[in-house]
Amino acid sequence: METLTAHDVWVLTSSALVLVMTPGLALFYGGLVRVRSVVNMMLFSVSAMGVVGVLWILFGYGMSYFAAGESGWAGNPLKDFGLIETDPASFIGLGFGVTFAMISTALISGAIADRVGLGSWVLFSGLWATLVYFPVAAWVWGGGWIQQLGGILGTHDVIDWAGGTAVHINAGAAALALALVAGKRVGFAKGSHQPHSLPLVTIGAALLWFGWIGFNAGAADEPGLAGLILVNTIGAPAAGIVGWLVIDRLRGRKPGVVGAASGAVAGLVAITPACADLAPIWALLLGLLAGGLCAWAIDWKYRLGFDDSLDVVGLHLVAGVLGTVYLGFFASDAGLFLGGDAGLLLVQTISVLAVALYSFGVSLVIALGIKLVTGLRVPTAVEEAGIDAAAHGEEAYAYDEPVSVEPVPAEPEPVPAAAPNARVGGRG
Amino acid sequence: METLTAHDVWVLTSSALVLVMTPGLALFYGGLVRVRSVVNMMLFSVSAMGVVGVLWILFGYGMSYFAAGESGWAGNPLKDFGLIETDPASFIGLGFGVTFAMISTALISGAIADRVGLGSWVLFSGLWATLVYFPVAAWVWGGGWIQQLGGILGTHDVIDWAGGTAVHINAGAAALALALVAGKRVGFAKGSHQPHSLPLVTIGAALLWFGWIGFNAGAADEPGLAGLILVNTIGAPAAGIVGWLVIDRLRGRKPGVVGAASGAVAGLVAITPACADLAPIWALLLGLLAGGLCAWAIDWKYRLGFDDSLDVVGLHLVAGVLGTVYLGFFASDAGLFLGGDAGLLLVQTISVLAVALYSFGVSLVIALGIKLVTGLRVPTAVEEAGIDAAAHGEEAYAYDEPVSVEPVPAEPEPVPAAAPNARVGGRG
Amino acid sequence: METLTAHDVWVLTSSALVLVMTPGLALFYGGLVRVRSVVNMMLFSVSAMGVVGVLWILFGYGMSYFAAGESGWAGNPLKDFGLIETDPASFIGLGFGVTFAMISTALISGAIADRVGLGSWVLFSGLWATLVYFPVAAWVWGGGWIQQLGGILGTHDVIDWAGGTAVHINAGAAALALALVAGKRVGFAKGSHQPHSLPLVTIGAALLWFGWIGFNAGAADEPGLAGLILVNTIGAPAAGIVGWLVIDRLRGRKPGVVGAASGAVAGLVAITPACADLAPIWALLLGLLAGGLCAWAIDWKYRLGFDDSLDVVGLHLVAGVLGTVYLGFFASDAGLFLGGDAGLLLVQTISVLAVALYSFGVSLVIALGIKLVTGLRVPTAVEEAGIDAAAHGEEAYAYDEPVSVEPVPAEPEPVPAAAPNARVGGRG
Repeated sequence: METLTAHDVWVLTSSALVLVMTPGLALFYGGLVRVRSVVNMMLFSVSAMGVVGVLWILFGYGMSYFAAGESGWAGNPLKDFGLIETDPASFIGLGFGVTFAMISTALISGAIADRVGLGSWVLFSGLWATLVYFPVAAWVWGGGWIQQLGGILGTHDVIDWAGGTAVHINAGAAALALALVAGKRVGFAKGSHQPHSLPLVTIGAALLWFGWIGFNAGAADEPGLAGLILVNTIGAPAAGIVGWLVIDRLRGRKPGVVGAASGAVAGLVAITPACADLAPIWALLLGLLAGGLCAWAIDWKYRLGFDDSLDVVGLHLVAGVLGTVYLGFFASDAGLFLGGDAGLLLVQTISVLAVALYSFGVSLVIALGIKLVTGLRVPTAVEEAGIDAAAHGEEAYAYDEPVSVEPVPAEPEPVPAAAPNARVGGRG
Repeated sequence: METLTAHDVWVLTSSALVLVMTPGLALFYGGLVRVRSVVNMMLFSVSAMGVVGVLWILFGYGMSYFAAGESGWAGNPLKDFGLIETDPASFIGLGFGVTFAMISTALISGAIADRVGLGSWVLFSGLWATLVYFPVAAWVWGGGWIQQLGGILGTHDVIDWAGGTAVHINAGAAALALALVAGKRVGFAKGSHQPHSLPLVTIGAALLWFGWIGFNAGAADEPGLAGLILVNTIGAPAAGIVGWLVIDRLRGRKPGVVGAASGAVAGLVAITPACADLAPIWALLLGLLAGGLCAWAIDWKYRLGFDDSLDVVGLHLVAGVLGTVYLGFFASDAGLFLGGDAGLLLVQTISVLAVALYSFGVSLVIALGIKLVTGLRVPTAVEEAGIDAAAHGEEAYAYDEPVSVEPVPAEPEPVPAAAPNARVGGRG
Repeated sequence: METLTAHDVWVLTSSALVLVMTPGLALFYGGLVRVRSVVNMMLFSVSAMGVVGVLWILFGYGMSYFAAGESGWAGNPLKDFGLIETDPASFIGLGFGVTFAMISTALISGAIADRVGLGSWVLFSGLWATLVYFPVAAWVWGGGWIQQLGGILGTHDVIDWAGGTAVHINAGAAALALALVAGKRVGFAKGSHQPHSLPLVTIGAALLWFGWIGFNAGAADEPGLAGLILVNTIGAPAAGIVGWLVIDRLRGRKPGVVGAASGAVAGLVAITPACADLAPIWALLLGLLAGGLCAWAIDWKYRLGFDDSLDVVGLHLVAGVLGTVYLGFFASDAGLFLGGDAGLLLVQTISVLAVALYSFGVSLVIALGIKLVTGLRVPTAVEEAGIDAAAHGEEAYAYDEPVSVEPVPAEPEPVPAAAPNARVGGRG
């Protein structure tokens, strides 16, 4: 019997780590919305796990890579249909892969808080995964044209270790398209929609950073490389926290949890494509830049007038582009500043533009199509009443208990009250 | 020096993953109860970690397997007493084992929300682990009669890879017995007791799914097998989410977080015994069926009139039976529909019935015994006042701050107010 | 190409596990404070990840060990500056190391709830990591004088497997110094400052226990040893829960979540130095003692009159000393009660005193220095108004939504109300 290798175990572990990122995102996004939209927002991530998980097994895995002899827009969706003919030796790797597809799709949902029904989102997520994520994954990691671009142009290969293009630019560009088609929330204005729970934001960010170790390092099977990725996936978000807080201070803003958590995420997004190809000191600089740049970029939506509710564009698109292009300058032995020529910068830029434009364009078409069929947005009255109560029949919290439906004795027996010092034994 | 093997590392990792499931359950159950019972419900899981953790090291591990030459009701509790004579080479495996014992015991507590004191639960959990879990684990995995059943009957061996019988049917049947003995909550009726925090439910479900990767795959030491389990432990709950949401839609119910999370759990429970023996396409079907069936089964309690507060029966017993029996039809190369004969279906059914009846019967006796000694339930007045405040002297939340116990100046100095735009720098 | 070993994978995994402990601590501490100070408290842990993460890569790693030929107060901070000259083969190990530095620093912040500004904390955390944590880590694990002490005195080597001295006594003594310099909160008195969210406390404790498996076992590369540590890192906190609840019962206090979670943490702290050198039965006893002792010790602050807000001293210093000294009696083959002489007890005691005094003294100087520069505490008016609102411009929760900034129609269209039975499909 063939036994597990160390790398098998690392990919299994990393799959669990990346799997928990999508519910982590549900909590991160859930904390950032108003209390009236938490159920809707969390359901978007959870349902994406359902839809993308099923599609991946049915045909998504097959679409996400080119087998020998295959070429074109995407892998053949029938070759691994239902994984019926698939070699079990591929199962660990494709189990890791589905967790990437889940989180990439779920990321988009941050753009459409408060105003889109679950049915429309389920349609969008299934179509986007099929028409955008699976093909782009095949281009970037599955032997497709982006992976071949360096060879075609006779220069350095594109570097996108863990998904600057395939995940973050991809999701960020889709978020922009979807936000444009969905339109602005009722009452959209700077400061009008405040996060309802910062502990929830912190929980979500904690699970994201935690899982990101597997996201970035899972594919590494060499100790020096895995160690480099580990260090960079800690150092860049650490610097991202510092960068965001510094920019806020320079602008006279008070330091807060939303900024610190967003700074960490910005650093993580930026290091995603670059984690295997930057010396730690350049990863620190990248994280610092990402934190600072995104602190500034998330305000663009107010000036440009699109309602990307939770800043998928301002974080994932912006930091994804930053990290991918930064490699053109700082990649070890290949960046323009570190001994390379402009070839890497060229292919990085092409891949950024290609994925951004493709994802934006196809997402726009999908969103417009859904708008024709379902309207995409819930009725304004539902939005104003609160989408959770009106569209889901659930509210996130029930802190004030309803009166019991059965009659209870009007005068209950005297209750042994909690001793006055009861909680004194606690901590405080 | 002997060094760690890859499988050692995988079992260590899986132990951490399964360990976090029990506090995850504390949060899942804690979110599903009313705000007045959160402390009580969370303490049930946390105290089970304490009680079962200590008992396992003292004598539980010894009871949970039959050494060479041993036979009977359970393993000899003295042979590994305090692990004093135990070979350290067994420590990784038995550390993995204790995490199963913890979560199995804690699962039961969902049946008795709002109305049972901690002392009674501690008694129940210790006795149940000792008289039910440890022996049944020995029957199913420790060389006992269920593991030998196929050989005895001259047919296929029972398949229960990760605990359809030993964990979920076992806990579900005990929950039914305990709910019957405890009786209904004051005011029990459909819709009368609403979950108080859906973000908490989501956090709990996230940790459960995450940990379940280790729960199901931890014992696999072959890449194809571990990969199959990974894929199935993602695919079945994904399909469970879809199944639950589809059934709710067909019944005209609105889609919610409780349903989506419960659908994932239903898929996870069903795949637990079956994860190593189903092709992914049949795992998807099982998850879909489990989600749909449990969406329907959790209403039985209202018709049958038992107050299984958080649906331990409707999820764990029902999906546990489904997954274990489903193997009789769809197990690779052994199920009735896939080239096997009825032998597997027979032994699966016997093991389901045996564990369900044994756990139900012994749990009934334990619960009745405790009822004699402690009354089992708290006084009605305590239940009506809220068990957290009255029995624990703690309430889950203190959002409204009490006035300070020391006199504070009546007129504080003017405070530099938060700048009006202070939170504008946030996200919203 | 050199491929990952099993131990490489275990250290990578453990790094992710320990990494999540610091946000886990943010949540644990965040739940324990009043609702008005949650943002401030969580930011202390999150900012420590930023500051310490950056410093570690810049010069902290170099300071934390003595290279061949080096000696003195700490390792040379320039030898691995920016990790520019560092061998990538060290990256996995130093990535594991930074997670220890982060959590050790963040632990201290529990002493200063409600009353210290972020800027002062950032200064403190950076200076403390540099002047205390990095050197002490070098003394204990990096070839320094504590590691050499047994040899110098001609007796048994000091045992501090995972950080009784380097982490818990170190942080606990610093917390005492910082609490003394910061002074008491307004209104400090027994029972005056109640935890605001016990689910948050539970989430934090869950992530701490989960991560502690990696904290304690990450450095083990032998199956018997790793298994022993796994068992002890489960058994001791399980017994700690039991110990705390028993002491509370003996004192007539009601059982609660804060006690149970604190009991688990007490057991975990105590087993940290000892996990590799105690038989499981003695680990159970240690956990029981730690839970009971800390349940009692956290009240000292009221009698002694220092405001260690969240009991860093009562838990980490007390249980850290207990576990480190307990080894002098119960360490396998070396403790006074188990075949050894008094030599181990002597070196354990010296190392406890040395680290406690060094950390206390240097922390006192740092804190007094910062008090001169920034005042350390926020103005009383800010403290009374609530530090989150006044100093951070953020509040943890926004459950009551502000009215929309744009005018909305006074009479919205009739909304399709949630069907009366809408949530009945839920669980309750």
